Amino acid sequence: MAKKKEAKTLDELFHDTLKDIYFAEKKILSTLPKMEKAAQDPTLKRAFAKHKTETGGQVARLEKVFKIIGKSARGKVCDAINGITDEGAEIMKEYKGSPALDAGLLAAAQAVEHYEISRYGTLKTWANELGLSNAVGLLDQTLAEEKKTDATLTEIAESVVNQEAEAA
Amino acid sequence: MAKKKEAKTLDELFHDTLKDIYFAEKKILSTLPKMEKAAQDPTLKRAFAKHKTETGGQVARLEKVFKIIGKSARGKVCDAINGITDEGAEIMKEYKGSPALDAGLLAAAQAVEHYEISRYGTLKTWANELGLSNAVGLLDQTLAEEKKTDATLTEIAESVVNQEAEAA
Repeated sequence: MAKKKEAKTLDELFHDTLKDIYFAEKKILSTLPKMEKAAQDPTLKRAFAKHKTETGGQVARLEKVFKIIGKSARGKVCDAINGITDEGAEIMKEYKGSPALDAGLLAAAQAVEHYEISRYGTLKTWANELGLSNAVGLLDQTLAEEKKTDATLTEIAESVVNQEAEAA
Repeated sequence: MAKKKEAKTLDELFHDTLKDIYFAEKKILSTLPKMEKAAQDPTLKRAFAKHKTETGGQVARLEKVFKIIGKSARGKVCDAINGITDEGAEIMKEYKGSPALDAGLLAAAQAVEHYEISRYGTLKTWANELGLSNAVGLLDQTLAEEKKTDATLTEIAESVVNQEAEAA
């Protein structure tokens, strides 16, 4: 057992973290329709719908990265995303019918985006170190999408949704 | 009960989220010494030690924000930070004695930073909307610190730690 521990290197950490974000993306894919349904503001609804489509593409990119490292695409329970989405579910329940619901949904979605930004940033750095240039390109495409989504959510938060909550 | 739900507005969401990040900061404060102890690279050890001191200041700032809104400083279990730190603890256990341990610690710490960046960004936006200008200043100071810490961790990840993991 001790020997096994010694052997754990960056390529294994890369693979473990790939499984973590693969699980997370699939969880997000199943959560976004609920958030889209719950959202009151039409701009926010559209943003969730668009991100659902994008997330499907991100899952496909991860499957390509698994292929690059010669592993089958498999997730591994990610406690972080479970915790983050549990908080989102709690907001949907506690703020149902409330004028602040959209603001809460936005906050939950931005917590998700930031988790992904940190994971893709890490994976991209490691792919670089490991000389996996094709993987770097794929991870970078998703990282750019996540950052753009986060910026869009910030714009919506600053313009539409908080005014709704205040006006209540 | 329905009436209570209707009444939930942005100031309550602000208060709820303040309790969430207050719990998270205290959890981080108790986790950082373990990460500092586990880190192999001295630059990383110092970064964790520095951030521990900073986190103490961030807790104090949150207490001032609670005061501004006339509430007592109290946390509320934050599933997200529990999930994120559980993953960090798993890394410390699974990669103990491994050359990739520091890379894993860095990834865990950056996931924590991004959670905080999302929460402080959200709280700052809401404090603005609610006209809590003193709170905006306090939240913005912490937000700037978290972003700087994240940038420092990226630098360390790119320079020292991954090379250690590769060289193994």
